[in-house]
Amino acid sequence: MGDLDRFFSPASVAVIGASHGTEKIGGRALRTLLKHGYRGRVYPINPNHSEVAGLKSFKSISEVPDAVDLAIIAIPAALVPDVVDDCADAGVKAAVILSSGFAETGAAGAELEERLRTTCQRTGIRLSGPNAEGFFNVGGCTAATFNGSIDPDSGDTSSAAQIAVVSQSGGLAFAFFNKGRRDDLIFSHVVSVGNQADLETADYVAHLIEQDAIRVVLMYVESFRNPSRFLTAARRAADLGKPIVMARIGNSAAGSRAARSHTGAMASPKAVVDAVMDAAGIVQADDHDELLNIAGAFLGNPLPQGKRVGIVSISGGTAAWLADACSAGGLEVPELDAATQARIARCIPPYGTSNNPVDVTAQADGYLEPLEIVGKAKNIDAVILAANFAGDRRLVREGQAIADWVRRVGKPVLIYSYASPGEKSRQLMRELGLHCFTSLQGCVRSLRSLVQYAEYQRTRGERQAPGRRREDVPEAAARLLADPRKTLCEYEAKLLLAAYGVPIPEEALARGVEEAVAHAERLGFPVALKVQSPDIPHKTEARAVQLHLSSAAGVREAYAIVIENAKRYARNADIHGV
Amino acid sequence: MGDLDRFFSPASVAVIGASHGTEKIGGRALRTLLKHGYRGRVYPINPNHSEVAGLKSFKSISEVPDAVDLAIIAIPAALVPDVVDDCADAGVKAAVILSSGFAETGAAGAELEERLRTTCQRTGIRLSGPNAEGFFNVGGCTAATFNGSIDPDSGDTSSAAQIAVVSQSGGLAFAFFNKGRRDDLIFSHVVSVGNQADLETADYVAHLIEQDAIRVVLMYVESFRNPSRFLTAARRAADLGKPIVMARIGNSAAGSRAARSHTGAMASPKAVVDAVMDAAGIVQADDHDELLNIAGAFLGNPLPQGKRVGIVSISGGTAAWLADACSAGGLEVPELDAATQARIARCIPPYGTSNNPVDVTAQADGYLEPLEIVGKAKNIDAVILAANFAGDRRLVREGQAIADWVRRVGKPVLIYSYASPGEKSRQLMRELGLHCFTSLQGCVRSLRSLVQYAEYQRTRGERQAPGRRREDVPEAAARLLADPRKTLCEYEAKLLLAAYGVPIPEEALARGVEEAVAHAERLGFPVALKVQSPDIPHKTEARAVQLHLSSAAGVREAYAIVIENAKRYARNADIHGV
Repeated sequence: MGDLDRFFSPASVAVIGASHGTEKIGGRALRTLLKHGYRGRVYPINPNHSEVAGLKSFKSISEVPDAVDLAIIAIPAALVPDVVDDCADAGVKAAVILSSGFAETGAAGAELEERLRTTCQRTGIRLSGPNAEGFFNVGGCTAATFNGSIDPDSGDTSSAAQIAVVSQSGGLAFAFFNKGRRDDLIFSHVVSVGNQADLETADYVAHLIEQDAIRVVLMYVESFRNPSRFLTAARRAADLGKPIVMARIGNSAAGSRAARSHTGAMASPKAVVDAVMDAAGIVQADDHDELLNIAGAFLGNPLPQGKRVGIVSISGGTAAWLADACSAGGLEVPELDAATQARIARCIPPYGTSNNPVDVTAQADGYLEPLEIVGKAKNIDAVILAANFAGDRRLVREGQAIADWVRRVGKPVLIYSYASPGEKSRQLMRELGLHCFTSLQGCVRSLRSLVQYAEYQRTRGERQAPGRRREDVPEAAARLLADPRKTLCEYEAKLLLAAYGVPIPEEALARGVEEAVAHAERLGFPVALKVQSPDIPHKTEARAVQLHLSSAAGVREAYAIVIENAKRYARNADIHGV
Repeated sequence: MGDLDRFFSPASVAVIGASHGTEKIGGRALRTLLKHGYRGRVYPINPNHSEVAGLKSFKSISEVPDAVDLAIIAIPAALVPDVVDDCADAGVKAAVILSSGFAETGAAGAELEERLRTTCQRTGIRLSGPNAEGFFNVGGCTAATFNGSIDPDSGDTSSAAQIAVVSQSGGLAFAFFNKGRRDDLIFSHVVSVGNQADLETADYVAHLIEQDAIRVVLMYVESFRNPSRFLTAARRAADLGKPIVMARIGNSAAGSRAARSHTGAMASPKAVVDAVMDAAGIVQADDHDELLNIAGAFLGNPLPQGKRVGIVSISGGTAAWLADACSAGGLEVPELDAATQARIARCIPPYGTSNNPVDVTAQADGYLEPLEIVGKAKNIDAVILAANFAGDRRLVREGQAIADWVRRVGKPVLIYSYASPGEKSRQLMRELGLHCFTSLQGCVRSLRSLVQYAEYQRTRGERQAPGRRREDVPEAAARLLADPRKTLCEYEAKLLLAAYGVPIPEEALARGVEEAVAHAERLGFPVALKVQSPDIPHKTEARAVQLHLSSAAGVREAYAIVIENAKRYARNADIHGV
């Protein structure tokens, strides 16, 4: 399968392990597929039934008379490898393995998973999962999942689908979808990648960003199986101007516990990966709501030319709060020039504020005029309108004119309602194509993401130069990145940063005292020595650092001291060098 | 009026400036009052109408035949002082002035406001506002406001009302109410304080915390008019165990612009006020959602004994994410002992995780058993349950048992749904008295607030000692606090901190060189000298700091240097001393 078209849009699906009812996941998956309007052929497979959910059931995949594009597998883990073999033999193109009990449970499960990989290599069948919650091709009406948060009465259509979700957690993948739809975001695909025995994050992302309708990819990531391939996909996404918004968990549960014993000062793997993500233009988010807010901001807005925000509010408190939040978030809220202020003053009550942030007051006749004036200001790159859409009075009166203005102003406009929009307001905004933020900090953080992404796009030519010179990431760096729980030495972390084009100070690893002296003479004095050992993350605590060395003699003396202190601190430490 | 009972629950209300329709604020206020079930007598006052909204209208307050407890005033600012005089003469107890155009607009408006204050002093009438959006006594069905986000079909009842809002922004006050009600939070009073010409923040808070039903006070504050009185009320709230949750805007719009030219390193007024708020046990929040989340966490939960969190999740990704967020927020996610883990392992699938965070997996039979085991663990102070309440299947099956467990476990339990709860789930949780968080970071931040408040309550005896010794806050400190935009000298900021019991290093202000030497000898060498001038916020930049002085001679020399540098840096600087 050259691409994943047949995987996401199969002409026929077998559900292996389809059962009566919805208690078991095979039963739930079958019903979910049928309820979400799947238009292809469906074959339940269950040796104990001749009929499931009103469909003829087959004893095994080999009995199905037609070609099957996709098998959804929901049977005990121990049985899965043989069934996948059968599927490959029967010409099935791909399978989604919903079953758990593989590498995530230990050695025996890992062996089962290895057998799946062998089958893939031998036969060419592509596998999603195992230990996944499947996928939902929303526009294509293909729900290959047992997840409970998707809703058959979906209003999503393929033509407008703009958001793809690729997630290492199935629960979260569908939660993003579930929550985003309540904010009128329109999804295209939701993918739970599971253990990534075969198909992995990079495969899904690479496929999805090429779909014309998809404008933004949302991701939840715990670790990268193949960071190099993912970063290639990220580069392509950047070329296409399609932002990837990612929530990244830096540590697993155990890793998180371990991390607490570290100081924030050392170069942790998280800091390294963050730097790589920044260099690749990945927009990071730390909450479901933030992911969705940022997606909402990217859709329907041009990228801003800078970080200067104009605020127009009907509430003075909200105006001040937004200005504070923008400033705290690194955005600017510049003063408007006198002429602009004078024009604004003419269309707001005398107790309003005509400077930025503009407070038109709750008693203003409307906010279109001040919005237009602020939107035209030369020193404004983006506009936030803060209003109260609990009622729909203003929207009825001015909504169409505001929507028209948003479309022609050529700058991002974020609309924030400080009270929850009522149902009528929501409906109106949907019809007008306006996205409404309901979180103040969410609105500001989203605008900041827009500003940062725009800055990334403007400057990425220079930033990515090192990444371009060597078409791919060095294997050593990729290996380090693949396991975020490993303690990196400082020199390793910096190697990784350099590989992705992040500037680092000049330095070199010395494996002996004379090598250290030679490096020092090449780099120029003064120099510092720091022991490099994964067993000594806290070098200062171990007194394994010597600073301000201004001569070869000083380096020799310091070398002896740091090595001795390092060995005293951790007798069996694996010392890579200095 | 000794307290505010008659203000919040008047037996009769006059609406001065009542108009036909709802376009003008007087008309909106009258209709809002009538539509929200006010049960007392209502007298519209308008010289141009004999009838408004089906009620007999009067030409002036003096014509009303009965006693009036409260006047709602919505007429042009210039007319307000005379009308308030008339009200006082007619025996009206209190007035809410919705009109704008007072001190917020400049000198002429400030003069009008001063006239209001004079009338209060002369007659004893109490005023709320001006430039306010009024108040809503939700349980008492008294809506004295023109705000559009309150909804006549309120399900709130006085007996269950637990939350009071006191806000310097009317728009935000009612937005908190509007949003909170959607999360099934039950409000008692919403107050927009306006310009605080007479009644001020401290008055409302002092009154509201004494109401039995009120358990939490939410505030939005831009500046304190009388910080000393507010802190007295805060102390009383702490005695009653009623948390005050506050969103504080550190700078007005102009102040925010000014603040950006400062460095984060200097002791800004915001940092000072934050320290005072911490010392007073005020729970700070930086978003509407955070305010409401924290309120939800305080209601229905006991205070935790410590900061050790047990996490039980049906999604592995959510479990990891919560553990990361807890760790990042200063909470602990400790490992469970082997026996506890073994008990959990027996009631979850083999691919789940029995250590903390506990991943019971989406395929577990239920989460009551693991919850009970984690709740009993000795090293767990609070529990987060992460589930998916998009559907109501689990709630129907286990909801009652979980609600019973929450009530008897004796530790805080925060329930977080990573997908949006469906309407049926919401209804069930409402009936069961369970509060559901829908934001992951919001859930964790709320728990952190609970932990911090509990810690504050445990230790406040010692922390507040200095505040207790001098029954009230020093006037100088209060003056400083009242104006957050003023640049404080370091010694002033520290004075303020000390006044509120925040520990500061030993130091003294010297107004001359010999005084500096004397202080140094008393404090003990080495000492540092820093010029104290509100005109030199960046002392290091001005080279007005000398460190590590170890003798009287050194102090004399350094004194000359810093004063000279300070004068060169800012010739006309107002130098308070060194």
